[in-house]
Amino acid sequence: MAKPLFDSLVFFFLLVSILSSTLESRRLPQFLGRNQKTKINLVEQYSYETRYFEQILDHFSFNDLPTFQQRYLINSDHWVGPSGMGPIFLYCGNEGDIEWFAANTGFVWELAPRFGAMVIFPEHRYYGESVPYGSQKEAYKNASTLAHLTAEQALADYAVLITDLKRNLSAEASPVILFGGSYGGMLAAWMRIKYPHIAIGALASSAPILQFEDIVPLQTFYDIVSNDFRQESTSCFDTIKKSWDIITSVGQKANGLDHLAETFHLCGKLKSSEDLSDWLDSAYSYLAMVDYPYPSEFLMPLPAYPIKEVCKEIDNLPDGTSVLDRIFKGISVYYNYTGEADCFQLDDDPHGMSGWNWQACTEMVMPMSSNKNSSMFPEWDYNATSYAEDCWNEFRVLPRPTWITTEFGGHNYKSVLETFGSNIIFSNGLLDPWSGGSVLKNISESIVALVTEEGAHHLDLRAATTNDPDWLVEQRASEIKIIEGWIVDYYKKTKLVFNM
Amino acid sequence: MAKPLFDSLVFFFLLVSILSSTLESRRLPQFLGRNQKTKINLVEQYSYETRYFEQILDHFSFNDLPTFQQRYLINSDHWVGPSGMGPIFLYCGNEGDIEWFAANTGFVWELAPRFGAMVIFPEHRYYGESVPYGSQKEAYKNASTLAHLTAEQALADYAVLITDLKRNLSAEASPVILFGGSYGGMLAAWMRIKYPHIAIGALASSAPILQFEDIVPLQTFYDIVSNDFRQESTSCFDTIKKSWDIITSVGQKANGLDHLAETFHLCGKLKSSEDLSDWLDSAYSYLAMVDYPYPSEFLMPLPAYPIKEVCKEIDNLPDGTSVLDRIFKGISVYYNYTGEADCFQLDDDPHGMSGWNWQACTEMVMPMSSNKNSSMFPEWDYNATSYAEDCWNEFRVLPRPTWITTEFGGHNYKSVLETFGSNIIFSNGLLDPWSGGSVLKNISESIVALVTEEGAHHLDLRAATTNDPDWLVEQRASEIKIIEGWIVDYYKKTKLVFNM
Repeated sequence: MAKPLFDSLVFFFLLVSILSSTLESRRLPQFLGRNQKTKINLVEQYSYETRYFEQILDHFSFNDLPTFQQRYLINSDHWVGPSGMGPIFLYCGNEGDIEWFAANTGFVWELAPRFGAMVIFPEHRYYGESVPYGSQKEAYKNASTLAHLTAEQALADYAVLITDLKRNLSAEASPVILFGGSYGGMLAAWMRIKYPHIAIGALASSAPILQFEDIVPLQTFYDIVSNDFRQESTSCFDTIKKSWDIITSVGQKANGLDHLAETFHLCGKLKSSEDLSDWLDSAYSYLAMVDYPYPSEFLMPLPAYPIKEVCKEIDNLPDGTSVLDRIFKGISVYYNYTGEADCFQLDDDPHGMSGWNWQACTEMVMPMSSNKNSSMFPEWDYNATSYAEDCWNEFRVLPRPTWITTEFGGHNYKSVLETFGSNIIFSNGLLDPWSGGSVLKNISESIVALVTEEGAHHLDLRAATTNDPDWLVEQRASEIKIIEGWIVDYYKKTKLVFNM
Repeated sequence: MAKPLFDSLVFFFLLVSILSSTLESRRLPQFLGRNQKTKINLVEQYSYETRYFEQILDHFSFNDLPTFQQRYLINSDHWVGPSGMGPIFLYCGNEGDIEWFAANTGFVWELAPRFGAMVIFPEHRYYGESVPYGSQKEAYKNASTLAHLTAEQALADYAVLITDLKRNLSAEASPVILFGGSYGGMLAAWMRIKYPHIAIGALASSAPILQFEDIVPLQTFYDIVSNDFRQESTSCFDTIKKSWDIITSVGQKANGLDHLAETFHLCGKLKSSEDLSDWLDSAYSYLAMVDYPYPSEFLMPLPAYPIKEVCKEIDNLPDGTSVLDRIFKGISVYYNYTGEADCFQLDDDPHGMSGWNWQACTEMVMPMSSNKNSSMFPEWDYNATSYAEDCWNEFRVLPRPTWITTEFGGHNYKSVLETFGSNIIFSNGLLDPWSGGSVLKNISESIVALVTEEGAHHLDLRAATTNDPDWLVEQRASEIKIIEGWIVDYYKKTKLVFNM
């Protein structure tokens, strides 16, 4: 009955891989967070104080490890204070610089005055300035220094920080509401489930907490990306679908790679046609995530409804234009909307040490496939073995693919959340490919799904704009009403306790 | 706002202590578990298979650490099997050899046939045979090897084990019921709260989950011990109360320690009168825990209602008998009921490396005081500084006294459990001094407190005997009825899902 960490087959392949290092699995989609630029040019939109909190590196063991300084942004301008049990809005920082998330989560800032709330944006460990071992370079040195970059440790950071902060402010009675988008939304939902004594509710926006093991069909992500394009234009969809084989066959010809590099205006040499396909694949996935109803600069400067624009470019070229020329024109909307780029640099270092890659290689294993029939992507099966090999090659670490569901649940989430949880909003836009791995139906009276047909990746968390469509305005209004309900309920109960 | 791990005052005292090593805080009461003998003479009462499961040493980080073999006892004789969704009864092993707990938890074994349940007793990491690094000696070598002996890691062990076991048996739909007594009861309750997707309910017997920080009054434990004696006989209570000062003053006289050693039939020299007081203090505390209504051999061979017997001995000596002679006669009921001992060996190594001492010195910090007025014990204030010093001296580790409440909650447990939790029985006997740190009132319809006036430390978990008083029979019947309700509810819901 003893279960080895990895079965012998995996281990065999692992050895083969170490020796040969030839296999490489397709890069899996990333959330938005990690794509931010290292240096962010932030508009000083929201005011906050930047503080640092000394955190224990390992909350669950007693190793003699150095502590680290966790950065957090805080604003108490509108806070009612401890005597009025003023609420505390805590954004669960995700995989990137916290200032970037603060700048892109206007909803929380705009909501605070209305509720007399304090706002806190703690940074996720190992990202931004919140790195252990003194520097990013030291923290990302190897598997041993990266070991404590896990979701559970991050949740414990937030729990310890908020408990200490409340105690220092004599604000133990202040209700905490959690917010988070994408991986941050997963953290918010998990934190509500695992630390119900810390926070009274969570808004988990675009949080794919079910994108693990086989809880949702593995092709969901790429099917949704594909549907976004098909909905826009079947010919656009078809052109993209056709392009993969063409890229592969051109790449196999003499000087084919040079031809591809030229067609796609690449700055340097193309090493393999897969690199180009990955580059395109990424763009389509990101376009689906940020298919917002107004112009945005979240990842890249983009027009409103960028998929519509991409498809316009692909479709509207004169008859006789080649598939690859159409694709290039379309993809330029994503990679070069401003028209400033003369050529494109492919991200040709998929094995660069990055925090999210580490997380994906340890516990955040989100298996994905693509299906030739239901999607515009080539057939591609998830392969746990090559996934593990890649992780071993990159980090000398082996994933624990069943750990997240063991720790946080997943397979029977409906009955568990129904009978156990409360006060969580799962908000999703159906254009967002991550919505397929999230909760799209109400689970109980207080665990609700807010779904918008035309929404994309955590659009609701962004600041209100004059261009917001009605459905978005309504979605945010629903969220506010629910959060208000949580707080009112809490006050009622707390006062009842005080009066007892 | 940055909070150093320990304030400077603590650190100052720590340094003083390292240099001088003179201070020593009173030993705090232990649960029953750690007092078991290393070699247990088990009656082969229950049949089970002994298996081993390869566990990750650190579930929450990705250090490259050796795995270890977790021992678990399993019996499927009465199991209905996966097709009938046969329940799985899981006892959360606590701080000792799992065979000892299995032998002393007859209730679970007796219940299994009635429910067609499988029974599993996994051993707590670092105890019994389930030690990492190859041997007890290596595992207990220093703070670095002991680092992963924590409650959270133990809970994760149980979660991983049961998930794997159910998967291997295709028994994912089988409901799991948790059982636990004392620290094991705390684990059962915490597991139900933290892993609601793993288990549908928990019977947490004598589980002092509130014995942290200032949630319950610090003198609760010793007040209850004292009340047990006072209830039996006020003169007995008074004699014990008087004895402490007499012991101290005799100890200060010339040859006073020799006199004490002689009076108490100690085998060796007495180093200080505090050692004798500690030895007596321990006996009174344990007597309160095991004040069972029938003869038992849980810790020591003891008569039924041993406190009554101790007080009889103390009270019934002829007038003019000295206080110390009375105390010796009384305490002999605990330490020498069989009459086989010619002399007594004090446990004079309070700093021996023990698993529970490590846990108490890291996260399981349960502060206690004793009050001269409300108890029969001398005035004694809890001192966090000297507590931390002792831990540093013993293990080179510093406690995290606020961690358990941050991780598991505590201060606002009523409202949190009421709105969030379900299906937990907190059973307590009011004679048990640990009952003061447990949940003694119903929290909701499904989080209930079963309290018996005359019960002691997790008496309900023991096997039924012909001597069981009616209230104990009724308590167990209530527990069975509630557990039955959980299982029936689960089946109803599950079948509903299957039919949908």
